[in-house]
Amino acid sequence: MVDERARLEVTMLGECRIESPLSELLRRRRTTRHYVDETDRVLLDDTVALVTARGVPVHELPGFEPGGPRAKIFFDPSKTRVGIVTCGGLCPGLNDVIRALVLELTHHYGVRRIFGFRNGYQGLTARYGRPVVDLTPENVAGINEYGGTILGTSRGNQDPNEIVDCLEQLSVNILFVIGGDGSMRGALKIAEVVAERGRRIAVVGVPKTIDNDIPYIERSFGFQTAFAKATEAIRAAHVEATAFPNGIGLVQLMGRHSGFIACYAALANNDADYVLIPEVPFALDGPGGFLEHLRSRVVERGHAMVVVAEGAGQEYLSARGTDASGNLRLEDFGRYLRHRIADHFAARGVEANLKYIDPSYTIRSVPANPYDSVYCIRLAHAAVHAAMAGRTEMVVGRWRGRFVHVPIALAISSRNLVDPDGDLWLSVLEATGQPPVFA
Amino acid sequence: MVDERARLEVTMLGECRIESPLSELLRRRRTTRHYVDETDRVLLDDTVALVTARGVPVHELPGFEPGGPRAKIFFDPSKTRVGIVTCGGLCPGLNDVIRALVLELTHHYGVRRIFGFRNGYQGLTARYGRPVVDLTPENVAGINEYGGTILGTSRGNQDPNEIVDCLEQLSVNILFVIGGDGSMRGALKIAEVVAERGRRIAVVGVPKTIDNDIPYIERSFGFQTAFAKATEAIRAAHVEATAFPNGIGLVQLMGRHSGFIACYAALANNDADYVLIPEVPFALDGPGGFLEHLRSRVVERGHAMVVVAEGAGQEYLSARGTDASGNLRLEDFGRYLRHRIADHFAARGVEANLKYIDPSYTIRSVPANPYDSVYCIRLAHAAVHAAMAGRTEMVVGRWRGRFVHVPIALAISSRNLVDPDGDLWLSVLEATGQPPVFA
Amino acid sequence: MVDERARLEVTMLGECRIESPLSELLRRRRTTRHYVDETDRVLLDDTVALVTARGVPVHELPGFEPGGPRAKIFFDPSKTRVGIVTCGGLCPGLNDVIRALVLELTHHYGVRRIFGFRNGYQGLTARYGRPVVDLTPENVAGINEYGGTILGTSRGNQDPNEIVDCLEQLSVNILFVIGGDGSMRGALKIAEVVAERGRRIAVVGVPKTIDNDIPYIERSFGFQTAFAKATEAIRAAHVEATAFPNGIGLVQLMGRHSGFIACYAALANNDADYVLIPEVPFALDGPGGFLEHLRSRVVERGHAMVVVAEGAGQEYLSARGTDASGNLRLEDFGRYLRHRIADHFAARGVEANLKYIDPSYTIRSVPANPYDSVYCIRLAHAAVHAAMAGRTEMVVGRWRGRFVHVPIALAISSRNLVDPDGDLWLSVLEATGQPPVFA
Amino acid sequence: MVDERARLEVTMLGECRIESPLSELLRRRRTTRHYVDETDRVLLDDTVALVTARGVPVHELPGFEPGGPRAKIFFDPSKTRVGIVTCGGLCPGLNDVIRALVLELTHHYGVRRIFGFRNGYQGLTARYGRPVVDLTPENVAGINEYGGTILGTSRGNQDPNEIVDCLEQLSVNILFVIGGDGSMRGALKIAEVVAERGRRIAVVGVPKTIDNDIPYIERSFGFQTAFAKATEAIRAAHVEATAFPNGIGLVQLMGRHSGFIACYAALANNDADYVLIPEVPFALDGPGGFLEHLRSRVVERGHAMVVVAEGAGQEYLSARGTDASGNLRLEDFGRYLRHRIADHFAARGVEANLKYIDPSYTIRSVPANPYDSVYCIRLAHAAVHAAMAGRTEMVVGRWRGRFVHVPIALAISSRNLVDPDGDLWLSVLEATGQPPVFA
Repeated sequence: MVDERARLEVTMLGECRIESPLSELLRRRRTTRHYVDETDRVLLDDTVALVTARGVPVHELPGFEPGGPRAKIFFDPSKTRVGIVTCGGLCPGLNDVIRALVLELTHHYGVRRIFGFRNGYQGLTARYGRPVVDLTPENVAGINEYGGTILGTSRGNQDPNEIVDCLEQLSVNILFVIGGDGSMRGALKIAEVVAERGRRIAVVGVPKTIDNDIPYIERSFGFQTAFAKATEAIRAAHVEATAFPNGIGLVQLMGRHSGFIACYAALANNDADYVLIPEVPFALDGPGGFLEHLRSRVVERGHAMVVVAEGAGQEYLSARGTDASGNLRLEDFGRYLRHRIADHFAARGVEANLKYIDPSYTIRSVPANPYDSVYCIRLAHAAVHAAMAGRTEMVVGRWRGRFVHVPIALAISSRNLVDPDGDLWLSVLEATGQPPVFA
Repeated sequence: MVDERARLEVTMLGECRIESPLSELLRRRRTTRHYVDETDRVLLDDTVALVTARGVPVHELPGFEPGGPRAKIFFDPSKTRVGIVTCGGLCPGLNDVIRALVLELTHHYGVRRIFGFRNGYQGLTARYGRPVVDLTPENVAGINEYGGTILGTSRGNQDPNEIVDCLEQLSVNILFVIGGDGSMRGALKIAEVVAERGRRIAVVGVPKTIDNDIPYIERSFGFQTAFAKATEAIRAAHVEATAFPNGIGLVQLMGRHSGFIACYAALANNDADYVLIPEVPFALDGPGGFLEHLRSRVVERGHAMVVVAEGAGQEYLSARGTDASGNLRLEDFGRYLRHRIADHFAARGVEANLKYIDPSYTIRSVPANPYDSVYCIRLAHAAVHAAMAGRTEMVVGRWRGRFVHVPIALAISSRNLVDPDGDLWLSVLEATGQPPVFA
Repeated sequence: MVDERARLEVTMLGECRIESPLSELLRRRRTTRHYVDETDRVLLDDTVALVTARGVPVHELPGFEPGGPRAKIFFDPSKTRVGIVTCGGLCPGLNDVIRALVLELTHHYGVRRIFGFRNGYQGLTARYGRPVVDLTPENVAGINEYGGTILGTSRGNQDPNEIVDCLEQLSVNILFVIGGDGSMRGALKIAEVVAERGRRIAVVGVPKTIDNDIPYIERSFGFQTAFAKATEAIRAAHVEATAFPNGIGLVQLMGRHSGFIACYAALANNDADYVLIPEVPFALDGPGGFLEHLRSRVVERGHAMVVVAEGAGQEYLSARGTDASGNLRLEDFGRYLRHRIADHFAARGVEANLKYIDPSYTIRSVPANPYDSVYCIRLAHAAVHAAMAGRTEMVVGRWRGRFVHVPIALAISSRNLVDPDGDLWLSVLEATGQPPVFA
Repeated sequence: MVDERARLEVTMLGECRIESPLSELLRRRRTTRHYVDETDRVLLDDTVALVTARGVPVHELPGFEPGGPRAKIFFDPSKTRVGIVTCGGLCPGLNDVIRALVLELTHHYGVRRIFGFRNGYQGLTARYGRPVVDLTPENVAGINEYGGTILGTSRGNQDPNEIVDCLEQLSVNILFVIGGDGSMRGALKIAEVVAERGRRIAVVGVPKTIDNDIPYIERSFGFQTAFAKATEAIRAAHVEATAFPNGIGLVQLMGRHSGFIACYAALANNDADYVLIPEVPFALDGPGGFLEHLRSRVVERGHAMVVVAEGAGQEYLSARGTDASGNLRLEDFGRYLRHRIADHFAARGVEANLKYIDPSYTIRSVPANPYDSVYCIRLAHAAVHAAMAGRTEMVVGRWRGRFVHVPIALAISSRNLVDPDGDLWLSVLEATGQPPVFA
């Protein structure tokens, strides 16, 4: 239990001594209750305690530090310089987060200098020669109406020493990293170099995962937009499948490790007859396998609709990958399955009109829907409050209905997965009518 | 504390002795973990305990019964007859809930007879002569793609004795009521008559409130669809306001007691300069009042955008209502403000091109968006599990990330309100730039 | 016949002597066929000739000058200064037209100075003090994604002498007026003052009418976007009407003189039971009147859906207007009908749940849909080609599948109306099932 | 000229002697003007006559028979049996056409028996054993809200003798074929067999081509919906292209022979830098070729967006096809280009982040937009009027603003193509800024 609590402690750059400029706003509202009570905690998990450790007092349970504004802050806004970088694949809401960070820093803390680094960590690495952009309320106006990221992005991490050199050269005090788990590993290394050099540079992450697989963040930004958009691809494949004799719709959705998008999209429009996700193993071959079940259904009903998460069935690909070039490519399962279905039907002399859709780019590049827009703004506000209060090596999360501070190390130590025994997967089984196991 | 816990106890019709038909599904998945552990609880609130009662053991804190399937159930599915009724105003997702109730009851419990009552409680009251509809998987297919409710609806409660007469006559064992707080008061009375008569009829509610103002349900179904749609009206008014000289956009959104739709819609598209909600009082007149602030802004910037919740500023209407006919109509604030603005500008000789939009019907009548569709399905599944397990006088809720059982009496005892000291309202103040108080 | 042909002649400022800069583009395509043949004409109407004047040779029939680029142009692009103004109510596509004018003038003719006048003709009238905006490819980028007009607008004409003063002061050679028939009357007066003063200033209009009532332009820009958006209001009212007992949906759509939006919107979603338009008179009262027919239908079927164009039934309003204040307000028919329906049902003791929607602002303020975007671009290109070739006192039109030049005087001399004997209205009668006459 | 006119004559089954049931409707409107005057014609082309044959009287010019209701009809509605079949690939609006045919036949002519044949011509061929569906107003209600076709479809023609056997067996008098040019060739053969056997079965087509390449039909149904949807794919690829270093977006759109979708989609959202279509040849290689131009642009600006019609650059594929298997597959150009771009950049050591999208299924499977819905209804009405009046071997078209009757032989004798010298392609060149020739 002690270990657990240590893992939840957020690193601080130092003591908060400066009165927050928000005080003026709050004073005029004649309240100080907007401020977060420093003794407040959001319990990590009460279920375990309820069931297994019934005598434990509440305040001894592990809990997160809640997000929100503090009465005293660490950085003097007038002297603070901030950097923002977006890393990795696109996700709806990136521009919403950038915009909300800039507006909150400018209007409510009075920060005057915000740098945008171009094309991910490349923009913080001198040899790429990417220009640094000044971010102001004027040049972020309206960017939330566009998908993608105005800062551009790139994949992969860069040398953390070069990055900290860049931050020092520009006298940056706070670096906001908007990125996925790989980028957060990079951010952790940057924070470590900062600590080694004894600098006071806060590194705060806004976790981005269109797959919704980052732990301690109930729903990652862009996820709702993504699965809503994904339903359109399922609908298109379903319309095709039902129009042609023995039509089969096959849609591959994002989700390397978790099948949330596949599950939610399948539930939302209810056209799917099968959902295959990484968390639930399945047999393709044999009399109880997926292919034979699919064939029976198509012969009986004339059509079928299959939704797969890209990370499903990796055991089939690794075998296949070894045969070919040893270069396992996770995103191949949809295509692999497409060929297996075609071969299976052909070998049994059954006509199949298979239509395959991989809508990846058309999902991740759209603007955030209104819910995600609001969520991005609130996440960004929580990130700004945390950074100004001197927190570092952390990401903002949302846990049990509240915004919280999660140490980066904890956020990247595990994944949020669809629970094969939970109510979400049960609802998928019920909605699709697919057998609980293919074996 | 004892009182509090009592209030969270859900009433049961009797002991659960019948093995759930879901067992077969789960057995084939070689798991029983889908079932809810009867000792599990979802804490009502750990914040209070953390801050004020630090020594309290977790299991002594008040907590809700979690939703989900039980291994033993109360009703024998093959003999169970179910009724469904939708009451009150329209809300996105009504058809999704109806459809999911029918599919879950039929496919996963094997219930064979489900009645749909037409036009709210009128359909359960003999003298209205509304025909009763048989609900089957066939006739609910695809209804989720349409707004409204296939059962129709009506406002107001009916005599609970007549309703229970109707239920007895049709041998109904479970009544699902999808409706707002008024309808839930009606449902409570029905349950009381059932209890008086010693009948074993479960009355389970799926709480409906487009305003998101029902407590213990983190986000009511249809709310996200509603505020997303509301952003379109704000955008339209904003485009009009910025096109004409001294343009003022005024949009009245739903929210008789709570300003959630106004807050979320305003945050999402960020066109609003002012948001007025019931939870935060404001002065209209005087040098620090809203009207004078609005006039200054329009003169300086050439336009302004105002979003009001219909329940805002009731103190102005009650005064006005007394003058006129004594007939206080809550929905009048938008129109009242429209006239006050026009008069204020006219009195000061300032041109104003005011465009007023009240998009109420065009918001509440749309189909649920994908998120709300999924949410409706899961709420309905929780409601079915609860009813089949013999729970009554309760509604399904969602609390701290889990589905829970909430006694009706508790659900109607208070309202979910925007906290004027919370981070949502703070974000609205920051996003609009409006002054924290008009006084 | 002679008169008719004279009316179709477009006024020219002078002889075209300058080689078009487009020649270079076309030379590289090794073609000159992009250029319009000066002897080409688009027949005004062949039906009359076919049926009534069978011996007339084709080239003697009245025909429009086709739009498109000319090999020789009138204005020297490097010295040309252009003004753009948007007038009257909003319409989807205004920004598309502005943007396409600017891009075509800049990139393909090499014009270097384009002024945007703010808030309609007010922006060309010194005493309003509206700043003049420089329009460049940079500041019109992306404006087509927003509804409204970046130049702002206003209603009403201004003194043409003051306007020509302004044009002379800024040395403007071409004025593009994007506006409705009132604005085109203003444009005609401006062109007359220009002619009186012997100036070489081309006045070219891009006709705007969300109602689709300008003649010689098959479909006005924004019309398709508008009626598509209008179907949403009809759907909303229909959902409401079918949900409540004796529900009546009443939607008032734009159309002061013509019912095109009402007809197309009603056909498109097919929820309407009645469509009332200005072109087809109807009786409200009496046993064969609309109100009694509506009552019968509601009593029989439980609901009804009514779509009215705002200009319908003006005879009822003029009578009513005379009683009240003599101030005939065209837009009142929807509200008038709402009260008449309510009174009619009340007088007969029949319950009615009437839901009234007037979606005007939410229709006209949206961005153009893809079809209208393309159409706006092509209209703007035709307008630029015409103006650069020295045409004046004309608007661009589209007639029998080709872009044409229409003299302003002709364009404002009549209206495009729904033909009560044509196939559009016949289709509406068939789709709604309403009686062919209410009398 | 004589030949031309003969080609425009529509074949008739016999003399029209029966009074149209529409007469009653029209009598009540006190008009007969809804009926089409039998001497009316819609000129095929006045341009030629104007420019080259100036002395020709109008009535000697070739012209189409106009569509619309006739006062006298050929088939007795009470005894008429109708069949409907949908063939070939999906296209938005198929269900709208089916529904409008059924409603018009039923409500306005009083036809009582309408058969739906399943899966294209397979449904008319006994050995496939497809069940025949009864089509009634009840079972076509609301089908227009779904994409695809409720009748299903299939590719390829079947033996016309077997088909006519089927029609005779069911005593079908009218067959409506909704399909593309291949299906219309099949329809022509069916009509020929009907004529050989001396049967009075009308064969009337509603031409379907998502590519808009059928002549004498100004805009094919579904085309507007399709290109509007296509703009989303271009936007997605553009967002991706601008986010990553040296990003290249490549979108392949439908259009085997004509580039209309590519041109309109590119104009509508204006993200494209290059549009390649079948009608305009281009060099890929060499210093003036497309690949080198693309490389320069990417190096200079950091990104580029390419839109190709699937039928573009076939000369490259035929060469390639010969190398591989001799099996020329038209749809490969997008993929071919993708590899050529990747190779070209790799060979020159230039990084390229290429994102390829082929949105085909997600475009053709969506429901018709409101414009196409209305257009489908009106096309279907024209088809019903034509068939009831005994026309056969024809399709309905739209020419110069009016519905017309086009002999099938004429409709399949040529294609509607983008004119490389016309204003549409000129607008594309201007909007993209691409060079007029790659050579």
